[in-house]
Amino acid sequence: MDSRPDRDVNLGTATRLVADAVRDGAEFVALPEMFNLLGDRATLRAGAEPLDGPTQRWAADTAREHGIHLVAGSMIEAVGDRRFNTSCVYAPDGRRVAEYRKLHLFDVSVPGAEFSESATVSPGDAVVVAPGPPLVLGLAICYDLRFPEEFRAQVRLGATAIALPSAFTTATGRDHWEPLLRARAIENQCFVLAPDQCGVPAAGPAWHGHSLIVDPWGTVLAVAGTEVGHIVADLDLDRLAEVRRRLPALDHTRPEIYG
Amino acid sequence: MDSRPDRDVNLGTATRLVADAVRDGAEFVALPEMFNLLGDRATLRAGAEPLDGPTQRWAADTAREHGIHLVAGSMIEAVGDRRFNTSCVYAPDGRRVAEYRKLHLFDVSVPGAEFSESATVSPGDAVVVAPGPPLVLGLAICYDLRFPEEFRAQVRLGATAIALPSAFTTATGRDHWEPLLRARAIENQCFVLAPDQCGVPAAGPAWHGHSLIVDPWGTVLAVAGTEVGHIVADLDLDRLAEVRRRLPALDHTRPEIYG
Repeated sequence: MDSRPDRDVNLGTATRLVADAVRDGAEFVALPEMFNLLGDRATLRAGAEPLDGPTQRWAADTAREHGIHLVAGSMIEAVGDRRFNTSCVYAPDGRRVAEYRKLHLFDVSVPGAEFSESATVSPGDAVVVAPGPPLVLGLAICYDLRFPEEFRAQVRLGATAIALPSAFTTATGRDHWEPLLRARAIENQCFVLAPDQCGVPAAGPAWHGHSLIVDPWGTVLAVAGTEVGHIVADLDLDRLAEVRRRLPALDHTRPEIYG
Repeated sequence: MDSRPDRDVNLGTATRLVADAVRDGAEFVALPEMFNLLGDRATLRAGAEPLDGPTQRWAADTAREHGIHLVAGSMIEAVGDRRFNTSCVYAPDGRRVAEYRKLHLFDVSVPGAEFSESATVSPGDAVVVAPGPPLVLGLAICYDLRFPEEFRAQVRLGATAIALPSAFTTATGRDHWEPLLRARAIENQCFVLAPDQCGVPAAGPAWHGHSLIVDPWGTVLAVAGTEVGHIVADLDLDRLAEVRRRLPALDHTRPEIYG
């Protein structure tokens, strides 16, 4: 997506993209970080919503209407005076089955821009997986990708796939996006679903795009360009079982040693 | 290297390669896993040595003669009846400054071959870094690459670089070698030095080659092909400091959350 500071426009785009993906056979759909609203700090603060607000109602309705699992990217969630960067998952009957609040906030200088996510939101305090079937889905958001510990904790909770809704900058995305996503797939022997923002905002740096779907061997199943759109792939659960059986690295960890 | 079941031949090759690297300006040299002896299980068992045996004496002499830091790849170490896969580091005066026993043993089926490293050796029981200057060097060996926890523990001990002497198979190396090495560099903001075996043994699978040197941003500074030889790169410690200052991800971990 190329989300802008207008929620109605963004939800309209998401409605169209989900329908396109379902038409291509998708049963499990994931949207990017801040899919409902992306803009400056004031825009994000003003647009925060509770989990019973219009964005999550849209997501529940969309999941139920199409009978799909839906990872509703993320949005700025309002909880009293606090704000979180929150990703929710919906089952095909429209029930919300998981909510995850981003653990690691993007307080970083990249070439051309300074980010201070913690000026807008508070960090979450829990590792979250959405229960299956068909996939036990670990939830993480964008900058979380740099913290391998979070994904190991998801795997201990049974994860067989990882969703990473993102708004990755081009400056870091060019060098870090694909190797880190493939590494998370390989070392955790999980599918990785990584939908990214792709726009070039009027102010601030461009987003990287190149949404990826990776299999548990680290093979890229599908990759997007830098235009708005969708990608689809078949996730072969027999392949996941075979990879874990032949290369049983997840059974070879030495947690008593790492300290 | 393309190490074979003849220690004298292998040490002769290593002597030549280290001298070549020093001629190109190298001050810090790393050799691959099992650089002194590579062969079937019987060969490895028969060729095990204590840490005061000929291979480590060769390594101490070589470091002192050239006045370099030397990561003596790894060898099968004999400790009484036990065997370990052990990597030692030597200072420019020939002193051994660290010894690391491989933590994760390669008991894996890859296309065309079954490995059971634990039939020959026992696992180590400690994370090890070799003290600086100029580099605080985390030590790991080959299959350890799949376990991000080990490298996080090295960083907590102060690591600024990671050495990974390897004998990576082609079947896994083609898909996993570069993304995992780059990910370890990126997420730990460390240099990564990864010397690999490159031969095609008479029995068993071929080794992947493609030795890599990666910088703390994940950029590949040098890469080998599949022939015996050496690669060199300048490791810019100012660059490491800049990456860690601008993108302070190592300060953003949430160890209280991961469980």
